Amino acid sequence: MKKKAVVLYSGGLDSTTCMAIARADGFEAYAMSFAYGQRHSVELEKAREYAAKIGAASHQVVQIDLRQFGGSALTAALDVPKDQAANDSIPITYVPARNTIFLSFALGWAEVLGAFDIFIGVNALDYSGYPDCRPEFISAFENMANLATRAGVEGDRPYTIHSPLIQLSKAEIIRTGLDLGVDYRLTHSCYDPTVAGISCGRCDSCRLRLKGFREAGVEDPIEYVTRGAQ
Amino acid sequence: MKKKAVVLYSGGLDSTTCMAIARADGFEAYAMSFAYGQRHSVELEKAREYAAKIGAASHQVVQIDLRQFGGSALTAALDVPKDQAANDSIPITYVPARNTIFLSFALGWAEVLGAFDIFIGVNALDYSGYPDCRPEFISAFENMANLATRAGVEGDRPYTIHSPLIQLSKAEIIRTGLDLGVDYRLTHSCYDPTVAGISCGRCDSCRLRLKGFREAGVEDPIEYVTRGAQ
Repeated sequence: MKKKAVVLYSGGLDSTTCMAIARADGFEAYAMSFAYGQRHSVELEKAREYAAKIGAASHQVVQIDLRQFGGSALTAALDVPKDQAANDSIPITYVPARNTIFLSFALGWAEVLGAFDIFIGVNALDYSGYPDCRPEFISAFENMANLATRAGVEGDRPYTIHSPLIQLSKAEIIRTGLDLGVDYRLTHSCYDPTVAGISCGRCDSCRLRLKGFREAGVEDPIEYVTRGAQ
Repeated sequence: MKKKAVVLYSGGLDSTTCMAIARADGFEAYAMSFAYGQRHSVELEKAREYAAKIGAASHQVVQIDLRQFGGSALTAALDVPKDQAANDSIPITYVPARNTIFLSFALGWAEVLGAFDIFIGVNALDYSGYPDCRPEFISAFENMANLATRAGVEGDRPYTIHSPLIQLSKAEIIRTGLDLGVDYRLTHSCYDPTVAGISCGRCDSCRLRLKGFREAGVEDPIEYVTRGAQ
């Protein structure tokens, strides 16, 4: 019987690639998504639609409400920044403690499933401004997870938090996924899509994605309103 | 202006005492409760009713659903154990990753509030079977929190997870609370109350509470169906 892994899955390019890596590593993938009051809820519809197609054994959507905290352009009534130059500060789209919360739910599900592996598609290069995308955060969470659980009391540090994309560029992520047979038409990245679900091409997430495909020398197969300033 | 602290608050004896300690330490207390599909949802009604009365500056109830994971008598369709002798194994009422999830939300709220202190009323003596009630878990969470957040990137380890009850017996908790003027009529502990909200007197939580009051030499002011085998 295959070992189980919980894979945090948004329906986006990174988490879809991450799931392909988990499956290539021999795991049965249990996909976990979050309905957290994000403005781009089309992301969630896509995740529901794509999860089985990309090989998840099961897909769980956890309802949580981060909007009541405020504090992020992704959940509060702030404008998503467009055509913004990269800089070193923490972006307005950062959601407080988001990955901590997501990984905590993944840990709870893993404990119930008897899984000891959790995959998260965080990336330290393209998202250097997000504190909870850094290797030292992942390592500290893993350490905490092994003290938080039955297995931590009864076993010998069994949990592993896998973040296989953490040191890859977007182009490297795309090339890795293509090598594993990922169909990137079954992914969605835009923070601010049209009502029909077409990606804007101008938000941070679209710009990173388009830049990644350009650098990988491959055309992005999804539809955009505009492919933006090149 | 007083410093803010997020206090995890269930409406129970421990978290109410914890809030009194936070306030005595000079913090403005932001109470956070969770609607997590617990069978004892009367706990939540009591928490809503009591939060302001015991001095919370604000009270937030976060809706999450841990029932979908199963795995605990507190959230799944299992019987709450009654009149059960204490033993060393992890109790059936343990909810996977519960304190990890609760503290993660508290961290998110703290980050938005600009608070750097989180209080949690865990207890390592009376709940020795719960892995996420141990000092080493709290310490690992604090370490992780300081890597997960803006302050972790920009500051110098500002977050403190306070667990002032962790080494106290239930009787010591009660005496501490009484010294701080806590009115224990404004607390609720039972895992399996009657429809009218009367405590059963027989579940683990009631038994620990009643034993604590006996050892403190004080009568528990709340009403019980039975005060159980003494």
